[in-house]
Amino acid sequence: LDFNTIVPDRFDPEHLVRQFCQVRQTTERMVAGLSPEDQNLQSMPDASPLKWHRAHTTWFFETFLLKPHDPGYQPVNEHYAYLFNSYYNGIGQQYPRAHRSLMSRPDSDEVGSYREQVNDAVIRLLESAPVNKLAEIAATVVLGLNHEQQHQELMVTDLKHALSFNPMAPAWTRRPDPQGPAAEQGWVDFSGGVVTVGHEGRTFAFDNETPRHEVMLGDFQLARRPVTCGEFAAFMDDGGYERPDLWLADGWAWVQNHGIEAPLYWQRSEDGWMLHTAGCWREMDPHEPICHISFYEAFAYAQWAGARLPTEVEWEIAARGEPVEGQFADSERYHPASCADSGRLVQLFGDVWEWTASSYASYPGFRPAAGAVGEYNGKFMANQMVLRGGSCATQPGHVRATYRNFFYPADRWQFSGLRLARDTA
Amino acid sequence: LDFNTIVPDRFDPEHLVRQFCQVRQTTERMVAGLSPEDQNLQSMPDASPLKWHRAHTTWFFETFLLKPHDPGYQPVNEHYAYLFNSYYNGIGQQYPRAHRSLMSRPDSDEVGSYREQVNDAVIRLLESAPVNKLAEIAATVVLGLNHEQQHQELMVTDLKHALSFNPMAPAWTRRPDPQGPAAEQGWVDFSGGVVTVGHEGRTFAFDNETPRHEVMLGDFQLARRPVTCGEFAAFMDDGGYERPDLWLADGWAWVQNHGIEAPLYWQRSEDGWMLHTAGCWREMDPHEPICHISFYEAFAYAQWAGARLPTEVEWEIAARGEPVEGQFADSERYHPASCADSGRLVQLFGDVWEWTASSYASYPGFRPAAGAVGEYNGKFMANQMVLRGGSCATQPGHVRATYRNFFYPADRWQFSGLRLARDTA
Amino acid sequence: LDFNTIVPDRFDPEHLVRQFCQVRQTTERMVAGLSPEDQNLQSMPDASPLKWHRAHTTWFFETFLLKPHDPGYQPVNEHYAYLFNSYYNGIGQQYPRAHRSLMSRPDSDEVGSYREQVNDAVIRLLESAPVNKLAEIAATVVLGLNHEQQHQELMVTDLKHALSFNPMAPAWTRRPDPQGPAAEQGWVDFSGGVVTVGHEGRTFAFDNETPRHEVMLGDFQLARRPVTCGEFAAFMDDGGYERPDLWLADGWAWVQNHGIEAPLYWQRSEDGWMLHTAGCWREMDPHEPICHISFYEAFAYAQWAGARLPTEVEWEIAARGEPVEGQFADSERYHPASCADSGRLVQLFGDVWEWTASSYASYPGFRPAAGAVGEYNGKFMANQMVLRGGSCATQPGHVRATYRNFFYPADRWQFSGLRLARDTA
Amino acid sequence: LDFNTIVPDRFDPEHLVRQFCQVRQTTERMVAGLSPEDQNLQSMPDASPLKWHRAHTTWFFETFLLKPHDPGYQPVNEHYAYLFNSYYNGIGQQYPRAHRSLMSRPDSDEVGSYREQVNDAVIRLLESAPVNKLAEIAATVVLGLNHEQQHQELMVTDLKHALSFNPMAPAWTRRPDPQGPAAEQGWVDFSGGVVTVGHEGRTFAFDNETPRHEVMLGDFQLARRPVTCGEFAAFMDDGGYERPDLWLADGWAWVQNHGIEAPLYWQRSEDGWMLHTAGCWREMDPHEPICHISFYEAFAYAQWAGARLPTEVEWEIAARGEPVEGQFADSERYHPASCADSGRLVQLFGDVWEWTASSYASYPGFRPAAGAVGEYNGKFMANQMVLRGGSCATQPGHVRATYRNFFYPADRWQFSGLRLARDTA
Ligand SMILES: [Fe+3]
Ligand SMILES: [Fe+3]
Ligand SMILES: [Fe+3]
Ligand SMILES: [Fe+3]
Repeated sequence: LDFNTIVPDRFDPEHLVRQFCQVRQTTERMVAGLSPEDQNLQSMPDASPLKWHRAHTTWFFETFLLKPHDPGYQPVNEHYAYLFNSYYNGIGQQYPRAHRSLMSRPDSDEVGSYREQVNDAVIRLLESAPVNKLAEIAATVVLGLNHEQQHQELMVTDLKHALSFNPMAPAWTRRPDPQGPAAEQGWVDFSGGVVTVGHEGRTFAFDNETPRHEVMLGDFQLARRPVTCGEFAAFMDDGGYERPDLWLADGWAWVQNHGIEAPLYWQRSEDGWMLHTAGCWREMDPHEPICHISFYEAFAYAQWAGARLPTEVEWEIAARGEPVEGQFADSERYHPASCADSGRLVQLFGDVWEWTASSYASYPGFRPAAGAVGEYNGKFMANQMVLRGGSCATQPGHVRATYRNFFYPADRWQFSGLRLARDTA
Repeated sequence: LDFNTIVPDRFDPEHLVRQFCQVRQTTERMVAGLSPEDQNLQSMPDASPLKWHRAHTTWFFETFLLKPHDPGYQPVNEHYAYLFNSYYNGIGQQYPRAHRSLMSRPDSDEVGSYREQVNDAVIRLLESAPVNKLAEIAATVVLGLNHEQQHQELMVTDLKHALSFNPMAPAWTRRPDPQGPAAEQGWVDFSGGVVTVGHEGRTFAFDNETPRHEVMLGDFQLARRPVTCGEFAAFMDDGGYERPDLWLADGWAWVQNHGIEAPLYWQRSEDGWMLHTAGCWREMDPHEPICHISFYEAFAYAQWAGARLPTEVEWEIAARGEPVEGQFADSERYHPASCADSGRLVQLFGDVWEWTASSYASYPGFRPAAGAVGEYNGKFMANQMVLRGGSCATQPGHVRATYRNFFYPADRWQFSGLRLARDTA
Repeated sequence: LDFNTIVPDRFDPEHLVRQFCQVRQTTERMVAGLSPEDQNLQSMPDASPLKWHRAHTTWFFETFLLKPHDPGYQPVNEHYAYLFNSYYNGIGQQYPRAHRSLMSRPDSDEVGSYREQVNDAVIRLLESAPVNKLAEIAATVVLGLNHEQQHQELMVTDLKHALSFNPMAPAWTRRPDPQGPAAEQGWVDFSGGVVTVGHEGRTFAFDNETPRHEVMLGDFQLARRPVTCGEFAAFMDDGGYERPDLWLADGWAWVQNHGIEAPLYWQRSEDGWMLHTAGCWREMDPHEPICHISFYEAFAYAQWAGARLPTEVEWEIAARGEPVEGQFADSERYHPASCADSGRLVQLFGDVWEWTASSYASYPGFRPAAGAVGEYNGKFMANQMVLRGGSCATQPGHVRATYRNFFYPADRWQFSGLRLARDTA
Repeated sequence: LDFNTIVPDRFDPEHLVRQFCQVRQTTERMVAGLSPEDQNLQSMPDASPLKWHRAHTTWFFETFLLKPHDPGYQPVNEHYAYLFNSYYNGIGQQYPRAHRSLMSRPDSDEVGSYREQVNDAVIRLLESAPVNKLAEIAATVVLGLNHEQQHQELMVTDLKHALSFNPMAPAWTRRPDPQGPAAEQGWVDFSGGVVTVGHEGRTFAFDNETPRHEVMLGDFQLARRPVTCGEFAAFMDDGGYERPDLWLADGWAWVQNHGIEAPLYWQRSEDGWMLHTAGCWREMDPHEPICHISFYEAFAYAQWAGARLPTEVEWEIAARGEPVEGQFADSERYHPASCADSGRLVQLFGDVWEWTASSYASYPGFRPAAGAVGEYNGKFMANQMVLRGGSCATQPGHVRATYRNFFYPADRWQFSGLRLARDTA
């Protein structure tokens, strides 16, 4: 499955139906072993119950595809427009985000039935749409599928977070065993000048990746691989969490106010650090990429290491010639792994999202999509930082070099790590 | 079922086993129609998921009966001692109260199995206990059953609260239809003097009902029936929620800070007030007793009515000669109902708990039970007010004239109403 | 100065003028050495700037005496009715309590001038009032003076609290030196039965001390003197703050949530405990009465000591025959002191307020005063506990055996300590 | 006074002494008419008492100039190192920011004396410093003076905020009368390409203005003058505060959570909008620049107007050729004023700070100063937005085209407004 090959105005409906089914089934396969209670957990307002994700991604097709494009479509339940709207003010009011786990009804089975009814309607629409509307319909389906893939990643991170509150340490997958030594670290040189970044062409990309534009860039160096747990532990052993000189002022306030002493999911035991994973609590593997750190921690680590975070432009320039390969969610490991040396940059894609030094902002000339779907990306362009590259919870085929993820600087429940950069001496 | 007839040191084991089974089955019957998600709802820290209630009441027997009295007893799961301890510091640490809905595991079925295993062990113990231990064992069983009945009431109120967050207004029982006009209001005279209150004798009572003791009491009058919704609506129409002179200072601050404008579960509609009930949203019945009000609201209403709340001593003196009759949980209506005139005090028992003017405090000479079970009642004797009489969610046979319930003055999710009193002119 | 000798309907106007001047001058003398900044400190919403106390006590005479009784009276400033109203909803809106230190204007001198203008008007009124109104005017003046004395005590405790935030440890008075060994501890027996409590007669008392009424009381014993710092330190050394079994549930939650480890104003140093006093930081004197503890700490200490707190009735019965003697604010020490043995109960009055086991509630038949001044006491009868006896910051002549002070159970900035009681064996 | 003419390594000590005296005297002149209570007001943690500003700016010279460079210097008071450190962790701990108004001591006079003692020591040092240290000393003095000028601006904004809590509406300066019609609005064109921004040369600039560097820029247009109150009122009349589509998600949440309905200091009256100014409450002047708005409001206004905010690079390119003229703090009006047409961009400097679309971030190759003074700017490079141009509270000579101010997007107590930009069609 690779959306980068789909061109909405020149596509094969059968192919799109197959892709639609595949993405939708992936969601259902992810909850196959989970109880109704598991699916209804919400451990913080930022996270959502898996049942809600299943319903909301369905609501997306109902709202932006079926209602506008299928004149005979009858909504499955009139309350769902309100219950499963995430944040689209243009569509209407939203059920309070922090209360999502208070929705015991519709239950897990009813949501399954909702999904099936909408699936049927979407497939019917794709198979029967008039030719002059096909391109617009296809574009909306592709957007909906990419949207669902984003929620598939959140399903992993939200469930992991929720299960961490259970002292019985329930496992969701098998144990993520260490994979051997990390690639040797080193610097790779890149030359600056006027460079061009952003998405171009007729394949799918999110609006925030456009327009393609020129940027002036200095020479820089990028680390060959992400920072590892072992390296981060050295920062901790050197008093990293007690030295305000390493931290941004807001980061230091965050450390003090929340008593932060380690990455999320790290717990000290007699035998050293233990990590909560999707599979179990297991000992920290010094070779695997560090993750579940905030932007503030990434920044402080880089200060300590005498380096800095790359800008998103630097990252994109370094990544644009590389194959989109790495450990993605299809491994069902849901945990980053060490990776062998390849002679060049490794793990740019997959394993861990990499915090950049760049605030999430619009590209020059950015125009969000018309209508309520224009709320998808643009309105979040404040107070968040860009991450690049995808993670072990990202669906394969979902990301690319121009892909921009974004979270608040204190957020840690995503698989967020870092790669060092520095100015060329 | 009436615990008031059981005397622990002179009882019939078979009878006790029957009672045990009956109480335990009632709990299970209450959740019969509920989904796993329904059972795992927690809408505020004060309330708990029904699944948690099912497990905690089982933990009570395991902790206070099986572990001390059955040498061969093997705990069902070592984590449960922590997960299902409510507040007994003498037993050990407790899983954070506000996180109870984050326990997706054990799931609903596992809790059912936990209950069955403990049931079997309790019955075996009752059938095989040595004669010299029978009285103590029986006393603990009776305490555990009364404890479970208290949680059965909380199951009603907690579920009602949780379902009120669902805009689809799910019903749990059938619609609680109005039952006709309320009894005529009027005053009943009581003479004061030195009176004796509190529980005495060998039948079961909670420790906080003892010791029996003398109190000096003035003459007083008690209203024949509780205040109705219609009467409370008149207070509201007269600006009751906007007049600080009617309120205690803390009550007025509570009204202001929370924007209180009506009892809990009341919602204004075009057709007048609508009430959320266990059965549906339905129009307010002016004849039924007002409930889901805080102590502050009860106090303000009494001020407005030119009367006052009774003290708990006055209430007990008035109630001690009356039969323990009224609408209890066996009606499965779970909503107060109007009641016909009887020529004397009506609805003292059942329908709605009645706020009194009395702070919850120890009786002179009070001694809590030895050991961790002594934390049952005594440690809550601060900041709470006494309520008397039981409600439509109380199990039949559970309350008596000396029974003391207690909640914080701002609590409203119980079936709490009021009956007026005044000094004899 | 002793209000207990004033009978409003049979008094000497000249005498009352002298008393009025004396109380009003005491307030001014208390701020004589303080800068305008000192007088404007507010360290928490519960406390007020001294400048505000000076103005509010003046507002009281303006509002309840001059406006109703002096037809020609012109208010000094129309804004003051709002700015200096503490909590009288019957008078009108109030400036937000937590913002009192944001009132830089009127400044300290303007408040002095406000006080003088009102003083002149009150004296004129007293000297010229028609005979038929004299009793009512005198009663209001006496109430106003008692009110001002209460605020004089708060001036001490509020300033002490505010200055504790200054790391330069500014002193307000001279160092409160230890006064030698405490009286020997022991129990004094009291017989129960039907006793009569509350104020009676024509001398001044607050409304909450009335009506006088009968109470049934058991035999009890009262400790000869308050608990000392040394005794409380033994409780702490025995893990008193780490043992939940000693605490009320709300008290334990308070300890946990606020990280309480010692009484307010205690600080551990290399040389042992240091105490912040009005005079300086100085070492803890084991012989002086413990103070600045909450009701929760008093309760836990009593549990630990195998005793209990007295009820307010017990305290009053024990105190009613004793002379109202002790260390009051005229010592200008503003710190409790040890006291020699007298062969009977010592330190009932002065030194430290004694927490009782009694919730602050109305006496049977209680009626607050008519009009807005009725908000003085009655509306606070929820969630607070009664303290008895006065403290080292109480004005001499202000308290009596029937006097009821009240604070929330977590409050500690008053000079609040305890005396043990127990049931007669 | 114009720092832009001072070159630290080639300067006249006498000239610098004169400048030092002038800046230091300006601070004192600003508090000349204020009472000690006025000077000690703190209305929110973000703001500080004026007395604290007077002491902290003195501490800056003591800490970064006298202690390192004057071997014989004796600190005025050992506590001041802690009390008046704002946020320099490299220097040591800091007194809690939110408690600054709890420092009644040192009082206003003592702070005056502190200032004089430090002034004397600085002047002595400047007059006696060895030649080989003069450049470094001069650079630190110039930094200290620029620092003090920044605090002079905060003194205006902090006092204005604090006085707004006094319902008596105290005035600090004379009434800021309207100044006639605003300049005609219009667009000015700028061409893009590779441009160079940032400070260069040997005159003073803050570290965050460096290094000078190249940026790729598109063509753009900038509005001739800032948005006016009248224009902003039209946005409000058009439902600007009720339309989520105009707002960033975080901005909309801010509007909802804080009930925002107008700019800070606007109050609806019968006669239209009234504004709190340093001089009085007076009617809104539609011709004067809008100010006291957050970044979120500036963004929403620009959306509504079909335009956008300029980036800081665009602003700098537009401003670099313009004279640094406008209404600054020497007018002592402390309120923006309308300004006549000039045929080109007006009010770039002075009147109101202009929110830009740019997050506050380091320039490529940025290096903060060595030592604790390096905490001055760099550590705040997260979550804040850049503002440009200075305001009516900025000291004349303080700003320049490369000057970068920064505040959190929700901050409103600065004189913050906006100027529109748009892409060239
Ligand atoms: Fe979504
Ligand atoms: Fe329980
Ligand atoms: Fe008062
Ligand atoms: Fe500063």
